[in-house]
Amino acid sequence: MAFSFWGNCVNSVMKFKIAIIGTGNVAWHLAPALENAGHVITEVYGRDLDRASKITARLYASEPKIDLDFSESQAQIFILAIKDEAISELADAIILPEESILVHTSGAQPLDVLGYSSASYIGIFYPLQSFTTGQKMDFSEVPLLLEAEDQAVLQKLQKLAKSISNQTYIVRSKDRKAIHVAAVFASNFSNHMIRISEEIMRRQGLDFDMMKPLIIETISKSLQIGAKKAQTGPAIREDYETLEDHFRFLNFNPELAEIYRLISQDIIDS
Amino acid sequence: MAFSFWGNCVNSVMKFKIAIIGTGNVAWHLAPALENAGHVITEVYGRDLDRASKITARLYASEPKIDLDFSESQAQIFILAIKDEAISELADAIILPEESILVHTSGAQPLDVLGYSSASYIGIFYPLQSFTTGQKMDFSEVPLLLEAEDQAVLQKLQKLAKSISNQTYIVRSKDRKAIHVAAVFASNFSNHMIRISEEIMRRQGLDFDMMKPLIIETISKSLQIGAKKAQTGPAIREDYETLEDHFRFLNFNPELAEIYRLISQDIIDS
Repeated sequence: MAFSFWGNCVNSVMKFKIAIIGTGNVAWHLAPALENAGHVITEVYGRDLDRASKITARLYASEPKIDLDFSESQAQIFILAIKDEAISELADAIILPEESILVHTSGAQPLDVLGYSSASYIGIFYPLQSFTTGQKMDFSEVPLLLEAEDQAVLQKLQKLAKSISNQTYIVRSKDRKAIHVAAVFASNFSNHMIRISEEIMRRQGLDFDMMKPLIIETISKSLQIGAKKAQTGPAIREDYETLEDHFRFLNFNPELAEIYRLISQDIIDS
Repeated sequence: MAFSFWGNCVNSVMKFKIAIIGTGNVAWHLAPALENAGHVITEVYGRDLDRASKITARLYASEPKIDLDFSESQAQIFILAIKDEAISELADAIILPEESILVHTSGAQPLDVLGYSSASYIGIFYPLQSFTTGQKMDFSEVPLLLEAEDQAVLQKLQKLAKSISNQTYIVRSKDRKAIHVAAVFASNFSNHMIRISEEIMRRQGLDFDMMKPLIIETISKSLQIGAKKAQTGPAIREDYETLEDHFRFLNFNPELAEIYRLISQDIIDS
């Protein structure tokens, strides 16, 4: 009985040796989450040793590293958690051991950006979440979007992903681009609407706190019943008098006025 | 001791007799909240008796009413909770008793829209929240924005507001317009960004659920540390390659592409 239990454990929780390349927000959250799930983080690479050390300090026994020669590394999976624009160059430069899997964590970059690397296999391990260094995050709620051409590699990435998250998806590069655009609207742009709201209130010397219950209620309702049904306000009512009045109010910033006009029109049209 | 306690009660919780004019989302939530606070809802007016009865059915002893002759009403405060475009006409038509206070609940309409009514005093009682009939709402968390020219009337409105909400603000019409524009950005427009995100995912046959943790995290962070600090994504990074790529992806809908371009530009500029 004890033996069979042990056997299940070995099957269901495959442990990996992993190197993290990068020291940003994703690396800061991902490295301890992987270690907590029982994997070993062999090395953390950063251009700056201090930054790499800040992440290894959060881990049990991991080496900070500033050179890209990983030929002697024990790791099987190498996770590139760096800025989009640096991926291609770093992937080309890194020296990897035999049978290594190299993945990146970007929502915007295709799989083949890793195509000229020395890795035996390549893949994508994209956490669909906004990370901030120093802020607590429950990784089990972070959707992980996976891609790999090799089926055995994809299975390994799935096991790795499922060991830290309850939400894993296999997604083609083409779909991942759509998801990234959708995420920009849902996250960056909705946040910017709040930013504009803050600015309007500040300009008038008003307390932005009075806006918070409305935002919380709107977003909760939107996620619960869908954004189409949740919509309210002058545009959906086609209240052109108020729209015109608001447009005139925004005269102090023509860019804002144009954003107001365009989004209102799109609400009316859709 | 009992006497002094009773005295405090009378001073701190002034009870009003109130008539509600309107049968929409605001009336549906506001009428029971007022009654729960100890006020008496004398009548509920609707053009349609069935709709008025649906609200009086939620109250202890209130009359549904389809005519605008309130000359015999016991109410002291008359709350117009109707569509913006109907306020002026209804305010002109309603027949009110002596010493009556007439208020509207709109964020967009000025005080003087009630200027030609038969009311002795006029004011504004604007709940800054998005209401949906049938959905539970804690009124104590709803910010109430008040306005009146007469100081004694303003004090009465404040007592009324404080009896149902922890957040009451005295706001001039000019500021109320700014607040309404700010609310459109923070609520209607952020919701529309989620709507666009839903559409992009649906078009690609992808599960929108994977987007929800990101939205929740983004908005929480935004309200906690401010939207400027909370911003992430290709625009704030000035990652023009990704911006260009997303813009091209949105070719299928030029209006969306233009919204993408304009908001991204505003994020870069601000």
